[in-house]
Amino acid sequence: MRIAIDAMGGGDHAPKEIVLGAVKAVKQFDNLQITLVGDESKIKQSTENHPSITIIHTEDKITSEDVPVKAVRRKKKASLVLMANEVKAGKADACISAGNTGALMSAGLFIVGRIKGIDRPALSPTLPTVDGKGFLLLDVGANVDAKPQHLQQYGLMGSIYMKSVRKVENPRVGLLNVGTESGKGNDLTKKAFDLLQQLPINFVGNVEARDLLNGVAEVVVTDGFSGNIALKTIEGTALTLFSMLKEKFMSNTKTKIAAMLAKTELKGLKNQLDYSEYGGAALFGLSAPVIKAHGSSNAQAIFSAIKQSMSIVDENVVETIESEVQQLQTSTEEE
Amino acid sequence: MRIAIDAMGGGDHAPKEIVLGAVKAVKQFDNLQITLVGDESKIKQSTENHPSITIIHTEDKITSEDVPVKAVRRKKKASLVLMANEVKAGKADACISAGNTGALMSAGLFIVGRIKGIDRPALSPTLPTVDGKGFLLLDVGANVDAKPQHLQQYGLMGSIYMKSVRKVENPRVGLLNVGTESGKGNDLTKKAFDLLQQLPINFVGNVEARDLLNGVAEVVVTDGFSGNIALKTIEGTALTLFSMLKEKFMSNTKTKIAAMLAKTELKGLKNQLDYSEYGGAALFGLSAPVIKAHGSSNAQAIFSAIKQSMSIVDENVVETIESEVQQLQTSTEEE
Repeated sequence: MRIAIDAMGGGDHAPKEIVLGAVKAVKQFDNLQITLVGDESKIKQSTENHPSITIIHTEDKITSEDVPVKAVRRKKKASLVLMANEVKAGKADACISAGNTGALMSAGLFIVGRIKGIDRPALSPTLPTVDGKGFLLLDVGANVDAKPQHLQQYGLMGSIYMKSVRKVENPRVGLLNVGTESGKGNDLTKKAFDLLQQLPINFVGNVEARDLLNGVAEVVVTDGFSGNIALKTIEGTALTLFSMLKEKFMSNTKTKIAAMLAKTELKGLKNQLDYSEYGGAALFGLSAPVIKAHGSSNAQAIFSAIKQSMSIVDENVVETIESEVQQLQTSTEEE
Repeated sequence: MRIAIDAMGGGDHAPKEIVLGAVKAVKQFDNLQITLVGDESKIKQSTENHPSITIIHTEDKITSEDVPVKAVRRKKKASLVLMANEVKAGKADACISAGNTGALMSAGLFIVGRIKGIDRPALSPTLPTVDGKGFLLLDVGANVDAKPQHLQQYGLMGSIYMKSVRKVENPRVGLLNVGTESGKGNDLTKKAFDLLQQLPINFVGNVEARDLLNGVAEVVVTDGFSGNIALKTIEGTALTLFSMLKEKFMSNTKTKIAAMLAKTELKGLKNQLDYSEYGGAALFGLSAPVIKAHGSSNAQAIFSAIKQSMSIVDENVVETIESEVQQLQTSTEEE
């Protein structure tokens, strides 16, 4: 198996942490070959000349300031673009970038290409839950003007992933909505509800945003706009609370002692909410696994994303999505 | 000034806490008359026979299980319906209920009625920010299929409220979106962005969900679906973190001591996030102030909602909205 990785995406940590993650992976998995795309001289500093690592040199890269679609079209030598080309040319089975999310989505769509029958890919991170199992949220922004059938396809893709890669038996698929009763919601969710009910998945109906972290479902389906709002609200609220908490603990001698006494447990709380172990956000619906690693990924997060990509390839997630979508369309046409 | 209050809405706390809040208010404000609607025998237990309190007796009420529109149409003697009738008949200047949100929105729309020129009312709670000032989020669910001009009207109404009632000078109005750059978003927000720019308000452009609690704007405009998702995600994430934190502090002797040492500060943190002092969620766009108090409101929260209603009346918020909307329409027609 060969995985192509954009070594230059991901801010301050790139390329060093990315290369270190790749080295850790090739040391652990004998069947793995990694192609790192980016500045060869910088990359080489950390590869330990490992025989399973190949470098494609380029000096161009897409930054977080670049306008996604334009950047992918114009910067033909950017590391992210060359990485996607590897997949398109059949030289890599999957690809990973910690860079510009919009550019990765564009490269996925225009270079890697969609699975036949999937209208729109979905960006799908796994978010933490109290029980530590996490849930898959899709879409969080690949498609901000979703139609009901897109949400149906998200339900199908999410269910397949959680079953085959995360080994959740009969994963519960919920539709993010403003209330739990059926019949609730806007025009989009009302129509999507009916379509999700027709799928051969464990659709548990509407779920509310306040229950997401409690693990109300293993797969939560929503349009890219609302999903992005939910994702960023979770992140923002958690960050704000942690910074307020820190401030409280720094306020006087008593609280500083308290912080020392509870240090291990408070750190445990933060780790419980850390979802880098789940890997990155997959772009489902493309003809090969394309993974968005978190922008501030360290070596361990990149390693997780590599393991995740390998799993998606090994478990034939793309092929399964392809065949189930075809079956869905056949059955709809027969009706 | 006279305010009608649904004494029976609000779960376990009703009617006692609601009546106590009303009594506190009439004791404090000489110019205030309150009409409490509900079970007279229960209400009377706490009114202290205050001369500024009138009771309208009814045994019927709308519960949280009732289907909103149907309940408002059929339960003509329900406390919430009779309360709204008081406003319609000109016998009350404003009304407050802690009951079924959907039913209150229906009663507002069908009984109290809209301001001419406002297409859809917006449910608008004030949410906490780190600096303690709070921000107004609208809409959080009155209108889940919003159109661009609705969002424009929300911006206008929210700005007027924050300026006249909350005394924020030149309130910053932001559009909730998936990114801060102009041109970001779905079809709805792209169009709403242009319309908001045309208003005589301090429109600061797109704001992201992760910055809400940091006070990125005093007024945040969004469609009812996304607003509901944001609101419930904030609530859910905060509740989950607090319960995890509690669990951590209970895990052993050391952490229990830590909790004791930091008790005051941790309680301070919770209070900082408590937004009952801001009053309830106003339904803007109706021809009189209609306030949704939180379902579990205690006397203090009801008192805050009463003060808030009085302010909205005193500051002529409804009249100002009416005239500014008319000006907006005139200027649009002239173009």
